[in-house]
Amino acid sequence: MAQRERVWRVVEEVLERIRPRDSEIGEALRVYSIIRDRLSRGFPHDVFHIDLYGSIAKGTALSGDLDLDVFVLIPREYGKRWIRENFVRIAREALGDIEAEERYAEHPYLRARIGGFEIDIVPALRISIASEAITAADRTPFHTEYVRRMLKGDLGDHVRLLKKFMKGVGVYGAEIRVGGFSGYVAELLVISLGGFVEVLESASRWRPPVVIIPPGAEDKVSMSEALRIFRGSPLVIPDPVDVRRNAGAAVTLRKLSEFIVASRLFLEKPTKYFFEPVEINESMVERAIEIHSYRGTCTVFIEISLGRNAPDNIWGELRSLSRRIYNILESENYPVLRRDEYWDEESGEALIAIEMLACSTREPLEIKGPPAWVNNSVDFIEKQLGMGYGFWIDDSGRLMGVRRRERSAIEAIEAIIKAGTPKDIKTMIRISVNPREVIDRWIDKPGFKEWVYTLLTSVPRYMAHV
Amino acid sequence: MAQRERVWRVVEEVLERIRPRDSEIGEALRVYSIIRDRLSRGFPHDVFHIDLYGSIAKGTALSGDLDLDVFVLIPREYGKRWIRENFVRIAREALGDIEAEERYAEHPYLRARIGGFEIDIVPALRISIASEAITAADRTPFHTEYVRRMLKGDLGDHVRLLKKFMKGVGVYGAEIRVGGFSGYVAELLVISLGGFVEVLESASRWRPPVVIIPPGAEDKVSMSEALRIFRGSPLVIPDPVDVRRNAGAAVTLRKLSEFIVASRLFLEKPTKYFFEPVEINESMVERAIEIHSYRGTCTVFIEISLGRNAPDNIWGELRSLSRRIYNILESENYPVLRRDEYWDEESGEALIAIEMLACSTREPLEIKGPPAWVNNSVDFIEKQLGMGYGFWIDDSGRLMGVRRRERSAIEAIEAIIKAGTPKDIKTMIRISVNPREVIDRWIDKPGFKEWVYTLLTSVPRYMAHV
Repeated sequence: MAQRERVWRVVEEVLERIRPRDSEIGEALRVYSIIRDRLSRGFPHDVFHIDLYGSIAKGTALSGDLDLDVFVLIPREYGKRWIRENFVRIAREALGDIEAEERYAEHPYLRARIGGFEIDIVPALRISIASEAITAADRTPFHTEYVRRMLKGDLGDHVRLLKKFMKGVGVYGAEIRVGGFSGYVAELLVISLGGFVEVLESASRWRPPVVIIPPGAEDKVSMSEALRIFRGSPLVIPDPVDVRRNAGAAVTLRKLSEFIVASRLFLEKPTKYFFEPVEINESMVERAIEIHSYRGTCTVFIEISLGRNAPDNIWGELRSLSRRIYNILESENYPVLRRDEYWDEESGEALIAIEMLACSTREPLEIKGPPAWVNNSVDFIEKQLGMGYGFWIDDSGRLMGVRRRERSAIEAIEAIIKAGTPKDIKTMIRISVNPREVIDRWIDKPGFKEWVYTLLTSVPRYMAHV
Repeated sequence: MAQRERVWRVVEEVLERIRPRDSEIGEALRVYSIIRDRLSRGFPHDVFHIDLYGSIAKGTALSGDLDLDVFVLIPREYGKRWIRENFVRIAREALGDIEAEERYAEHPYLRARIGGFEIDIVPALRISIASEAITAADRTPFHTEYVRRMLKGDLGDHVRLLKKFMKGVGVYGAEIRVGGFSGYVAELLVISLGGFVEVLESASRWRPPVVIIPPGAEDKVSMSEALRIFRGSPLVIPDPVDVRRNAGAAVTLRKLSEFIVASRLFLEKPTKYFFEPVEINESMVERAIEIHSYRGTCTVFIEISLGRNAPDNIWGELRSLSRRIYNILESENYPVLRRDEYWDEESGEALIAIEMLACSTREPLEIKGPPAWVNNSVDFIEKQLGMGYGFWIDDSGRLMGVRRRERSAIEAIEAIIKAGTPKDIKTMIRISVNPREVIDRWIDKPGFKEWVYTLLTSVPRYMAHV
């Protein structure tokens, strides 16, 4: 158990820093009561309920990250349309001089900022059981209630540790950009498996598809049923407040795998860096450029300009363009390795990075033709001879040849973008294969240093301290 | 039938040139009678039989290629050992001032040359049925007898056409160097399928494994039995004089496929060049160097020095070394395309050519690791991080990375050869990636121009006239 001890020494040190101080909680609750008082001017008590949900309410919030989810519960009979047409107007009037920015998820909602706190003011329909939910927000009260009931003793701290770990290793967040674990999933894992280390130990033995049945769901759905209903999901966690829903649906196979790997690495050599990866500074980015150059691969950076839309929509389109470019290059036999995307919400500009073994142009390609005995074998031969490249027959009787590429990878990318892009992608600004040039232009954008460091080195941030 | 007419116009013109003139046959028979008279001094009539077998005896010889197979049939009870210990000595004494060179197949035999004719003087045991054969030569009298009986009318001319076609397209010869069709197989195909064009039409529809049951074998073996007995052979032709033997055993899948393709191409656009490919001259070789340079691939030529041994042994070792080099390069992810070998019997030197998409050194390689969830996934990660190359996880949860090559293809080849070569391969002379340099040294060796032209252009000789 020396291993467990080493793990706990790290964990206890981290916990000191991530558990919010009483004064911090007090301050958050003070902000909440201000917001609540204002809102009740527009949403009177006899008709509406105003309540605090989310991590503060559940006792799972991280110090320095006490964001408030203030819900306005609206009588069910008012319906979605009433919310869409009235909620933002009434809430703005009620908030008075507290400024709030309009945002959009399934409904419009408001985000206010007061003294370092980010407060989301969210409308939801008041329903009697979670399965009646019309939007995801409608289920939140049930989730909060479930978690409060199940998180006994110090389990809230275990959730804090797990969320901090998931953030540190880059798998936290159910939004499309991440495709990872939501706070609720982290809570369900701790509740189901018993604690932080137990979750990591379990994860280090996971083999997808992973099925976890939380307490309260066991009598409503069996493992094999859940696996059948949510076939195709790498992570299946029937939501205990509505078992027809998979709480783990957002988690991609890639993020699940990253979590498995991080769990194994942490349990083997526990360090605080899994929770608190080092800041990536400019000199580390400089070193990353050198490492990339030593690796000898070539990364193409495509800078594009985007329209305005909900983040999940923008990310969906950015990923779809990136995937299309990658797949076409791959089908034309360019030696592509991987793709990655970066989006700066502020400027509305994005980067697609395609790493290839080499970008140099017009190398010859191996062409595998049909076996000699299939009907169209002579067509292949005539095409090869017509182009002046010849053919041969290999030991298995297959026709073979080479061809020169008709266009460089960069010409191919330009043609793909010219042929049409998703609707919110406006224009391609430029293509570059020089990381330094790209870094000079983007280095001050939020999160860019972290993104480009990981891209260029292929070292996860939690290993960047070494 | 306009197509058949075009075929026949070509075929008739070729036939004029390949059918031996009476004077040529007369001259060959005169040489035979000289040899026969001399041999009977050492192998008297009352004990031995001396006879002429092979293509002249069967009426299938090609003009200008009237090689004589003179057999000395030896009483079976003398056995192999008697042959090995006495045949060459007695034959040499009997031939007197006719010089003959000792050669080796299953037994030692003699090769003499008289006025443009090559005469093989071959010992065989006299047996009563072919299945009693101890060596391949023992079956020859039965083959000759079978073919003489079956080749009616002008079918001898059809065999001449087929043999000439097979030579022209490079698939004639059962020796290991070629791995193609023997004269006897060409005869069996014409006998079984009815004529030259019929063989080609049939071949253009073949799909391996191909089974042909010649007349006289049908009542001894069925198609499905033959397929079962000779499983793994691409061409199955039960020998009508001994159906337990596959007359087509020497034909490799590659040569069978080359014959299929050549048959299709000929029937589509018949030309005399399939029978009589153009001579490859120095200016064509010059052009081939340019074509190869335009293709953009890189061919490594390995010059080696060989010992003396029977050609089939030498070829076996040369191929085995070539295959080993190719397989190791492929397993180390070098972009190998194909391999080919050239052997100059005279000088005992050989070339192995390995064509690759590129030879340039130390490009990075894509490394596919295990899925994140298998037991040893952390080992892969630690290895990658330890070497400074990093890793990432792809959408399917698989660990991925890159590595630089540890050695260039040429360094790899040098190491493979240093690690040991088959016994008759003495030394590596040099490695070159410059075709012109290699050609300058080898151009005058017999058959080299043809070999290097096909290698560098990937155009079969029967297409080289275009």
